[in-house]
Amino acid sequence: MKNIRKLGILTGGGDCPGLNAVIRAVVHTAIRVHGLEVCGILDGYAGLIHKNVRSLGLADVSGILPRGGTILGTSNRDNPFHYSEPGPRGENEPRDVSAQALKTIEYNEIDALVTVGGDGTQAIAQRFFAKHGLPVVGVPKTIDNDLNGTDVTFGFDTALNIATTAVDKLHSTAESHHRVMVIEVMGRYAGWIALGAGLAGGGDVILVPEFPYHIEKVCDHIRGRAAGGKRFSLVVVAEGAKAEGGQMVVARQVNDASDPIRLGGIAALVANQVEDITGIESRFTILGHVQRGGSPSPFDRILASRFGFHAVEAAVNRKFGQLVGLRGSEIRTTPIEEAVAEPRRVRAEEDLVHVAKAVGTCFGA
Amino acid sequence: MKNIRKLGILTGGGDCPGLNAVIRAVVHTAIRVHGLEVCGILDGYAGLIHKNVRSLGLADVSGILPRGGTILGTSNRDNPFHYSEPGPRGENEPRDVSAQALKTIEYNEIDALVTVGGDGTQAIAQRFFAKHGLPVVGVPKTIDNDLNGTDVTFGFDTALNIATTAVDKLHSTAESHHRVMVIEVMGRYAGWIALGAGLAGGGDVILVPEFPYHIEKVCDHIRGRAAGGKRFSLVVVAEGAKAEGGQMVVARQVNDASDPIRLGGIAALVANQVEDITGIESRFTILGHVQRGGSPSPFDRILASRFGFHAVEAAVNRKFGQLVGLRGSEIRTTPIEEAVAEPRRVRAEEDLVHVAKAVGTCFGA
Amino acid sequence: MKNIRKLGILTGGGDCPGLNAVIRAVVHTAIRVHGLEVCGILDGYAGLIHKNVRSLGLADVSGILPRGGTILGTSNRDNPFHYSEPGPRGENEPRDVSAQALKTIEYNEIDALVTVGGDGTQAIAQRFFAKHGLPVVGVPKTIDNDLNGTDVTFGFDTALNIATTAVDKLHSTAESHHRVMVIEVMGRYAGWIALGAGLAGGGDVILVPEFPYHIEKVCDHIRGRAAGGKRFSLVVVAEGAKAEGGQMVVARQVNDASDPIRLGGIAALVANQVEDITGIESRFTILGHVQRGGSPSPFDRILASRFGFHAVEAAVNRKFGQLVGLRGSEIRTTPIEEAVAEPRRVRAEEDLVHVAKAVGTCFGA
Amino acid sequence: MKNIRKLGILTGGGDCPGLNAVIRAVVHTAIRVHGLEVCGILDGYAGLIHKNVRSLGLADVSGILPRGGTILGTSNRDNPFHYSEPGPRGENEPRDVSAQALKTIEYNEIDALVTVGGDGTQAIAQRFFAKHGLPVVGVPKTIDNDLNGTDVTFGFDTALNIATTAVDKLHSTAESHHRVMVIEVMGRYAGWIALGAGLAGGGDVILVPEFPYHIEKVCDHIRGRAAGGKRFSLVVVAEGAKAEGGQMVVARQVNDASDPIRLGGIAALVANQVEDITGIESRFTILGHVQRGGSPSPFDRILASRFGFHAVEAAVNRKFGQLVGLRGSEIRTTPIEEAVAEPRRVRAEEDLVHVAKAVGTCFGA
Repeated sequence: MKNIRKLGILTGGGDCPGLNAVIRAVVHTAIRVHGLEVCGILDGYAGLIHKNVRSLGLADVSGILPRGGTILGTSNRDNPFHYSEPGPRGENEPRDVSAQALKTIEYNEIDALVTVGGDGTQAIAQRFFAKHGLPVVGVPKTIDNDLNGTDVTFGFDTALNIATTAVDKLHSTAESHHRVMVIEVMGRYAGWIALGAGLAGGGDVILVPEFPYHIEKVCDHIRGRAAGGKRFSLVVVAEGAKAEGGQMVVARQVNDASDPIRLGGIAALVANQVEDITGIESRFTILGHVQRGGSPSPFDRILASRFGFHAVEAAVNRKFGQLVGLRGSEIRTTPIEEAVAEPRRVRAEEDLVHVAKAVGTCFGA
Repeated sequence: MKNIRKLGILTGGGDCPGLNAVIRAVVHTAIRVHGLEVCGILDGYAGLIHKNVRSLGLADVSGILPRGGTILGTSNRDNPFHYSEPGPRGENEPRDVSAQALKTIEYNEIDALVTVGGDGTQAIAQRFFAKHGLPVVGVPKTIDNDLNGTDVTFGFDTALNIATTAVDKLHSTAESHHRVMVIEVMGRYAGWIALGAGLAGGGDVILVPEFPYHIEKVCDHIRGRAAGGKRFSLVVVAEGAKAEGGQMVVARQVNDASDPIRLGGIAALVANQVEDITGIESRFTILGHVQRGGSPSPFDRILASRFGFHAVEAAVNRKFGQLVGLRGSEIRTTPIEEAVAEPRRVRAEEDLVHVAKAVGTCFGA
Repeated sequence: MKNIRKLGILTGGGDCPGLNAVIRAVVHTAIRVHGLEVCGILDGYAGLIHKNVRSLGLADVSGILPRGGTILGTSNRDNPFHYSEPGPRGENEPRDVSAQALKTIEYNEIDALVTVGGDGTQAIAQRFFAKHGLPVVGVPKTIDNDLNGTDVTFGFDTALNIATTAVDKLHSTAESHHRVMVIEVMGRYAGWIALGAGLAGGGDVILVPEFPYHIEKVCDHIRGRAAGGKRFSLVVVAEGAKAEGGQMVVARQVNDASDPIRLGGIAALVANQVEDITGIESRFTILGHVQRGGSPSPFDRILASRFGFHAVEAAVNRKFGQLVGLRGSEIRTTPIEEAVAEPRRVRAEEDLVHVAKAVGTCFGA
Repeated sequence: MKNIRKLGILTGGGDCPGLNAVIRAVVHTAIRVHGLEVCGILDGYAGLIHKNVRSLGLADVSGILPRGGTILGTSNRDNPFHYSEPGPRGENEPRDVSAQALKTIEYNEIDALVTVGGDGTQAIAQRFFAKHGLPVVGVPKTIDNDLNGTDVTFGFDTALNIATTAVDKLHSTAESHHRVMVIEVMGRYAGWIALGAGLAGGGDVILVPEFPYHIEKVCDHIRGRAAGGKRFSLVVVAEGAKAEGGQMVVARQVNDASDPIRLGGIAALVANQVEDITGIESRFTILGHVQRGGSPSPFDRILASRFGFHAVEAAVNRKFGQLVGLRGSEIRTTPIEEAVAEPRRVRAEEDLVHVAKAVGTCFGA
């Protein structure tokens, strides 16, 4: 069995603070510890399809540790197994260009590929691994923290910091103005950011996709607070939250302008309803991609560095088809297949949910 | 002419970081420097109407300097000259309850009233001063920085910090993802925050209420950048920005759910149009009241403290009907009447506009 | 066995962001979930000695979640088993006033006492528990993160954020100026903050108490970087770091002005030596108590809230003499006796140490 | 008189957030508005001496706006009129190498030179201008804000933010611990940062170089607060503060290890004395170069951009030997000679000093 001599690395999917820290740790560990070469694939799997590969040395990763974004670029559209090329009239029919991607690997003499990304990126990696024997090691990445195979992903702590800072700022102004403030945070399928920022920021109501809410229960809680002299309330709502029996309402699908709710998002809807039902002035904030940007928190930089270090260790030890992850205080690997089987979602029996309820938070459910 | 023995102070209108710093400086200066008594009127003019007045000593203002909000509460609805009481079926007909307000002043033996607020608050103060001889001193307050009578208002620098931090975060993620990011900041009638945050954050497009925009010019600029290899763009838009020939689109008037644009706001509209016209993925953020909250910046704390100090000096020197303000490096007073005559808006010949254009910013006009 | 009806809580030892979050969670959980009464003992064990106890209701903890410090005050001198009263000529001979402390417990009808503090505070709690049967539940607290019984303590993440922010700022200025920057962070006996901030901030040298350093190795590393074109270096040093064969040098023991090193601290010493040996200009920063202050990070607020919640659960379930702690993702309890037996220190085989070395960090050892 | 075709730019002296914003604005304005070429001189005047010059295009300044430091590097030792080359035994005798510097200007066909720097840098620029007719335009830069010719310099607001954030953090911990916290901030000859951060952070004592202090007055103030129930105090001290009749004590001159005060700095000295005299535990922080680093505040980015824009305008209009500066809300130019004649220092009749005294601050004088 031949030894690894050259590592490839790509970053795929949505942006996430800490990607550069992973890249830096991979490059340093590969070069300094194991004497390997490293090359970066640009713009996620698109770089494999379009042969955009560059060599990465220590100088290339100097100074990138505290920077948001990724020096490799990313893409969340270019699945080599189902690739739609832009044609003269919009996009062409999707086709399988995975062979082309594999040729790029071969041409560049990449002995193992580190794929940094969320479930989409890892599912593709797994397919390359299982069907084509591509030696891959996955590094989990998601703002939303909804991946299995790790207790927590890098980027989540940074997003939580940003969301909580915003909740804190709304708090003082809500209190002075006797208003309801609704803040929409990321989390289309899992409510970890809303739960975390709601608990950390002292949110009065937390709405997450996992627990469909009743607007009346939300309004009852707000009225109860007003009756007790608290003439303001803070509602933290995940973008994927939905009313019992209702549908998901995502502000970012802006292309359907005929539907006011899709345009304004769940925050606008909730603020609107609360003001109508309670008569208390309500305002909303949609934080959006602000949560994905900026410098990663120390927690995320350290976790990302550890992931990068251990991804190289896993590659050198030929633990392919595995995803590195944090388990307690240790880094362990899990089969990618297992990790992406289903998302990690907020359960009703979650400790954080118990704690949030104990301090008086309403989940509207 | 009798000496001042007791000062009243109220905070009115929208929330603004630095209000507590003003209150603290007023209380300290009045008590320590001039041996006066101070009392606070709660919830803006509503406190005068409803006799909500409390005495303020040094202990009451201890520790409030770095805090957002206002310990006195505020209100932006209760105009004593045009007051709508809540009745059994919504609000009753508005009526003039200014006499009631004046009685509260008299009963509490307030010799001079410091009114901290924006144009609405100051216009009421001016009316009390001009019609009823109430000895008032105004302290200008507005996030939007659109008040005359001062070069800059406290709160604006803090709002600018918050908006620029958000723009910075969007920058890294926009760059990695090759996307257009649209961020909506405050400024219904004046574009100072958008102009400042756009210039400070390196925004590629800045849309302000003062310069109606053409969406084609905006899209041309974004396409020009893409052609030059910059596959991302950042658009900073004031909530009151409007297209040439179009109308203002304000997200926060959520009560008209039948109108998608009013619900989603100008940011949703612009992101939607840019994606449609350029084909580049676009996302939006609506910062909302996050800009009004949190701890004031040092600049604002210092300016607010100076305003509070000089408001007391003006009261003691019986400079009534005057507004304190910053002129260059000095604090000067201006007749309130003059200051509120018309808003301070961004002019085409503004130095900041020249500088923004020089660094390549598009105003869409 | 009688049920708990009233909980006492005290905070002892050095300041730590998150104390208020613990207090808030204890009060809410006790009152809302279990219908208990809560009282707060002021200034740590001093409040037991001097009968400073106040009742705590929901209103008392409103708004304290994001605040640094502790509303109960703290003290790190007042050991009831060895208490030195201030006398006319300095402090009197220490004596055992634990009986007095127990009387305060009895008088206030406190059925269980939650002690939030570090090893000093918990050792006293353990003594009360073991010798006098006082029903105590411990909550671990230390900036330095050197307590056993928990994977991590609240406050540490906040301190790490502050230290890393400072390292980041030094980075840009070091690079532009071609200087060596030495930054001293907390950690008298354990180097967790230095290790974390060094790794997160990309420090070139990390000096911790656990690994005595050789100044020549440090200077060799700095010279090696300069030879490779990196004309700047960043040294992160724990206050308790010491040279091989040397002694600890703590800046904060300022009372020995005759000893320049004790006055200036290890940072001054290292900067001095590096400049002398390498000839490269060196500057130092001593962060000091800045690391203990300010608003806790979301991570710490959540962890502190969980600790508070589970401390009440433990008390209600009569798990006395136990310390709540984080184990992986779960809260578990450990006998206090075990937890305080010895500090948790950085080991050579620590994953973080491996990662730091892989990215090129020098430990001077 | 020939037109300008090529601009040179250098950054000299201590680091200062906003340098990159100036460089960016100069490059954009020169290229976009006036069609000029721009070249950057590396490491301040050292680049002129050693012929380190590079061409600067729009791509070179892309993304640098929010970054601390300077992409051109800087130096505060290399005076071409008095230049000490490193020799085999330390530095050689200083000599005049200005002719060499002028040759670099000529060789690179630089028609005008923008010098961004403090009094040292500008004094050299003035000498080149006055003696050799070099067409220079100065841009004022100093953290300390002690330059004449402008109301305020960029970098100062950022330093003030950093210092005030640290003071805020010390506040909560001082209050919980009943301690005196001494924080040393920058300002060797002028106390603007200490005054600003002291006022903004609610410092109880502010010590600046301009007002020599009496330690007894400082301690009286601290004891007075303790007597009134405030068992903590915050002392903000400029590095150049000195006792009445005493000498300056600068921590950063670490090369004199035999002198404990020089090693530990004024903060250590004051903390030491306060603890001795009052018996209240005292701790100190030395912020150091942390104040010079990191991303510039929006205020500084905007001011720096305006300075850069107007420096090019001044060059194009052949206003040589002039320094751009902020006067009120406008950018004006002043002869460099006038601006560097003497530093701008805190005067007793300063408005900020009156305000600080009104809110109870002690200056120890």
